Amino acid sequence: MTNSEKSNQMANAIRFLSAEAVEKANSGHPGLPMGAADIATVLFTRFLKFDPKAPHWPDRDRFVLSAGHGSMLLYSLLYLTGYEDMTIEEIKNFRQLGSRTAGHPEYGHASGIETTTGPLGQGLANSVGMALSERIMNAHFGDDLVNHYTYVIAGDGCLMEGISQEAIALAGHLKLNKLIVFWDDNHISIDGPVSLSDNTDQCARVEASGWNSQRVDGHDQDAIAAAIETAHKSDKPTLIACKTTIGFGAPTKAGTNKVHGSPLGAEELAGARKALGWTSEPFVVPADILDAWRSAGQRSAGDHAAWTQRLEAKDINTRSEFVRRIRGDLPGNFEEAIIAYKKKLSEDKPKVATRKASEMALEVINGVLAETIGGSADLTGSNNTKTSQTQNITPEDYGQRYVHYGIREHGMAAAMNGMALHGGLIPYSGTFLTFSDYARGAMRLTSLMGIRVIYVMTHDSIGLGEDGPTHQPVEHLAALRAIPNNYVFRPADVVETAECWELALKSRKTPSTIALTRQNLPTVRAEHTDENKCAYGAYELAAASGKAEVTIFATGSEVEIALNARTQLEANGHPASVVSVPCFELFEQQSEEYKRALIGDAPVKVAVEAAIRLGWDRFIGLDGIFIGMTGFGASGPIEALYKHFGITADAIVAAAEGKLK
Amino acid sequence: MTNSEKSNQMANAIRFLSAEAVEKANSGHPGLPMGAADIATVLFTRFLKFDPKAPHWPDRDRFVLSAGHGSMLLYSLLYLTGYEDMTIEEIKNFRQLGSRTAGHPEYGHASGIETTTGPLGQGLANSVGMALSERIMNAHFGDDLVNHYTYVIAGDGCLMEGISQEAIALAGHLKLNKLIVFWDDNHISIDGPVSLSDNTDQCARVEASGWNSQRVDGHDQDAIAAAIETAHKSDKPTLIACKTTIGFGAPTKAGTNKVHGSPLGAEELAGARKALGWTSEPFVVPADILDAWRSAGQRSAGDHAAWTQRLEAKDINTRSEFVRRIRGDLPGNFEEAIIAYKKKLSEDKPKVATRKASEMALEVINGVLAETIGGSADLTGSNNTKTSQTQNITPEDYGQRYVHYGIREHGMAAAMNGMALHGGLIPYSGTFLTFSDYARGAMRLTSLMGIRVIYVMTHDSIGLGEDGPTHQPVEHLAALRAIPNNYVFRPADVVETAECWELALKSRKTPSTIALTRQNLPTVRAEHTDENKCAYGAYELAAASGKAEVTIFATGSEVEIALNARTQLEANGHPASVVSVPCFELFEQQSEEYKRALIGDAPVKVAVEAAIRLGWDRFIGLDGIFIGMTGFGASGPIEALYKHFGITADAIVAAAEGKLK
Repeated sequence: MTNSEKSNQMANAIRFLSAEAVEKANSGHPGLPMGAADIATVLFTRFLKFDPKAPHWPDRDRFVLSAGHGSMLLYSLLYLTGYEDMTIEEIKNFRQLGSRTAGHPEYGHASGIETTTGPLGQGLANSVGMALSERIMNAHFGDDLVNHYTYVIAGDGCLMEGISQEAIALAGHLKLNKLIVFWDDNHISIDGPVSLSDNTDQCARVEASGWNSQRVDGHDQDAIAAAIETAHKSDKPTLIACKTTIGFGAPTKAGTNKVHGSPLGAEELAGARKALGWTSEPFVVPADILDAWRSAGQRSAGDHAAWTQRLEAKDINTRSEFVRRIRGDLPGNFEEAIIAYKKKLSEDKPKVATRKASEMALEVINGVLAETIGGSADLTGSNNTKTSQTQNITPEDYGQRYVHYGIREHGMAAAMNGMALHGGLIPYSGTFLTFSDYARGAMRLTSLMGIRVIYVMTHDSIGLGEDGPTHQPVEHLAALRAIPNNYVFRPADVVETAECWELALKSRKTPSTIALTRQNLPTVRAEHTDENKCAYGAYELAAASGKAEVTIFATGSEVEIALNARTQLEANGHPASVVSVPCFELFEQQSEEYKRALIGDAPVKVAVEAAIRLGWDRFIGLDGIFIGMTGFGASGPIEALYKHFGITADAIVAAAEGKLK
Repeated sequence: MTNSEKSNQMANAIRFLSAEAVEKANSGHPGLPMGAADIATVLFTRFLKFDPKAPHWPDRDRFVLSAGHGSMLLYSLLYLTGYEDMTIEEIKNFRQLGSRTAGHPEYGHASGIETTTGPLGQGLANSVGMALSERIMNAHFGDDLVNHYTYVIAGDGCLMEGISQEAIALAGHLKLNKLIVFWDDNHISIDGPVSLSDNTDQCARVEASGWNSQRVDGHDQDAIAAAIETAHKSDKPTLIACKTTIGFGAPTKAGTNKVHGSPLGAEELAGARKALGWTSEPFVVPADILDAWRSAGQRSAGDHAAWTQRLEAKDINTRSEFVRRIRGDLPGNFEEAIIAYKKKLSEDKPKVATRKASEMALEVINGVLAETIGGSADLTGSNNTKTSQTQNITPEDYGQRYVHYGIREHGMAAAMNGMALHGGLIPYSGTFLTFSDYARGAMRLTSLMGIRVIYVMTHDSIGLGEDGPTHQPVEHLAALRAIPNNYVFRPADVVETAECWELALKSRKTPSTIALTRQNLPTVRAEHTDENKCAYGAYELAAASGKAEVTIFATGSEVEIALNARTQLEANGHPASVVSVPCFELFEQQSEEYKRALIGDAPVKVAVEAAIRLGWDRFIGLDGIFIGMTGFGASGPIEALYKHFGITADAIVAAAEGKLK
């Protein structure tokens, strides 16, 4: 067998493992793995720096299958190159409950899955965050420790999604020349020919955004290799348009949408075997081909060993800092810094917007942590995400800590996912809470993957005033609380803001969204505690003077209103308590006893939040009083709006006393 | 005064009305109106076909201020050209509660506001839907009745957003050559120079997507006019890059981000007056300039009259059909067609997926209504949105009724908004329910504007099976129900699907999302009623044999499971009823008596939905039993998933009987 014949058969191993797994599952997508097998073979056998025996080696090249429906391509590669947890049994259990081989690649299900993909465009946008992280970490730690490529296989669907154009423009702007994207240019989408819906010149489009592009025959392995070599010399990110045939080898369905998302069927599969000269049993890879793949999987073992030696040769400080950051541990002095800062706040009692409080907290945090990377979708001065430690990351200076993401909320969120996945960095970035809608596709994946990304969402209610209903979130707190595994924080003052930041940074498997006000709020936590009270999710902020007749639950800017209402109620002879609820999700994690006691048995329960009621019944019951929004907001000065929508201490008192009668 | 001096002063009228209104409100965005005043003056005084005395004239050119933060540009234009409801008092009340002049243009607040803008990129994407509608309506009714342009002013922010790239690629594909976009190319975004985050060659990028582009000096009115004339001859959509100075005229702040979103301040405003030779009092436009504007506002009165004559000269059928469609009335035979169809369904009792049921309903609907325009984000065969009446709309044949939107959910949703706003058409289109996340930015605006757009969201739960958690919505029903003014329908069978479609089509001010299954469901409405039971939002589907011990509330695919549980409970001697809840929002609109009676007083209340609990307490109370999801789904065959997550009749029975003990 010539080398060329062998590498063709190596690609065929991917094709048939994939097609057979789909056939057995009677579900899945054979078209992409069969079409992109040559690209993947060239990449994994000649270029990719990786070590299946050490899947988490920090300096590995990253490979992202953005077209996640082609998951069997990735699973085949992981099996063939020798990842120990990707057995042939897993391949046979493709798409079965509990297998590592889910319908789409799920981060955490198997080693070598760098990110969860499937929702189109996300992987490509993740890869921009990964490639940026590589440059940042390289600037922080040098070529010895961080120097790798990020490779992506993307489909037409990825490129049509708006998120990818946001990510591409950002990557071009940042000149991320170690990012190389293979476009599986097969001219087919689910509905039929791509020309049904698109005539874009994708190469010209990425070039307009500061990329290089090349076009190759996606079934000519040497041409693909030459393109990669050229891309390695590029001073810009590169798109390699690989003209491929979807379902390559399938005798009647190749090159059509029939092979995209359904099993080939026995007859077509047999025809493909014949056409490609593949004679072994299903799920059996001939020994020589498997050996070749396994030895390709060991190609970088020497590189890995040399890298380990370089790490060990570093001074203890560099080494321990690198290891700490890759592990994602916070520095030992973090907690005490937060406590000292909180103490000062309780003494100073500043009256500031919580967005400002967030900036103040970040000033402390960014002084202690070197790994936080801030940013904003062009609302830096509004989101208050920039501190004295964070200067702009530019192509000339990747060693800084602030990203101007541009007006690209979705791309920003997905890039942050990529940064968190890469390791060594903790990304946080901001936009207005209402524009979480734009980022939601990526935010859901942050939660699904369970990674540490912190969304700083300011202007969190009608309290933003005149910008009006397009900019005023009313349903967003509820909609974000609806996402599983997502901490939604809404702090009430400077102290709670610091506590919420501490919790967000310590939370390694659950991402956080911090909702912050535009308007100033008084310090309500005037007595210092070392303890982080927000960790309870909800806690009694002000006790009733006697047995509580009224308990008021509130978050964020409405805590001040609740406290004012409490004062009035107490003056009117109605003992009343106030519970601050900075995080529903953390509250649910408390003991049943704690939860029951906190909700208490006051005859009147009131919830106050300048948003819709959804979710609040859990605190106040179905017959509780809710003071908040019932629809969209309006444009006007803040005082006029709170009065117009009846979110006032007077309204609380009137409603509560009405019920007490 | 020369013509040129006069037109400069006409532009200055926009500049000072805008800057003064922002100054008085002490809030707003003077930069864009001052920068884009020349573009707007040329467009409104020399090209735009419109009639301020008849703002709804169907054949008017559409003008969309995609950069909605520059709202004062639009309000100034409406006042100057003589829209009767845009008085100088309204200008003075800019951004005050109850004024027509909200912080961002709000559709419905004043005549001449064609769409709500502010969230960036939306207006540009709306305009693609408008321009497409113009071509479709032109194909249906001819040049005599429909023949107009769509003009847009977009900023850097609009172009950076992914949604705009989706819309631009779609417009290029469809060769919408009557769409002309002015890019206010002022090199400034909120954070500072655009170069902080972007280096895209926007002209090259749109050309890659099938547009023409031109570059002009945005303060040279004749050059702008020449560019528009060239664009009128284009066979493609056109981007006119207008190099402008943000805050043109402001002596120290022009050309910087300081003028973007804050009042100029008294000194700077005085300096601008001096620089531009503007001497009249605040909010006073010199009589000759106002006259010139008002006469520009009457430029198209003759065109309008001629158009009216052409309409009146049409045969009665054409005329009444055109008028009906523009009014948005449904044809008289619609309701009886639905009733006849429902009757047949209750007799035939087909067992089909509700996505298939939706296709069957659409086959009836599209046969009766000529104005429905279907589509999908490249999931036509999965969303079942195409019927025998709907063939592909192409640049060669705009007279058809189906849009292959491509893999562009956000652009699709915004384009549908544009179609609904244009008038004459009812857009519906599909994707998977989980990808409503991608479209949410536009879906929120559908609800805020209160327009008739119908989202067909299939694969609505873990019931989609093997594609796994990325594709399985669990929080999306709750998250969509959270949006104000949004009907979220989840029908249980063919009959309910037909009823939900009827309600969606009849709902003119509240948009609809119809969540539909991949899996087959039996017909549960086996007895025909002329009455649309889904109109109640929730209704008793199966009564208890005696006084109900258990009431089970369910939606969609879980209604079958609820009915099976009821059968078991009844067999075990526990009278049980089943309530189908196809639409929470319609239920809330019923009388208190109806709601109380329906929820009833069974000692055990159970809700079943293959999604999270959020929102269900309203039916079952805090101590009710919820059978559904508590986190993300998993990849596996449907039967395995329902069993794994415990969403079965057995689980309902066990939980209910456990509570009855």
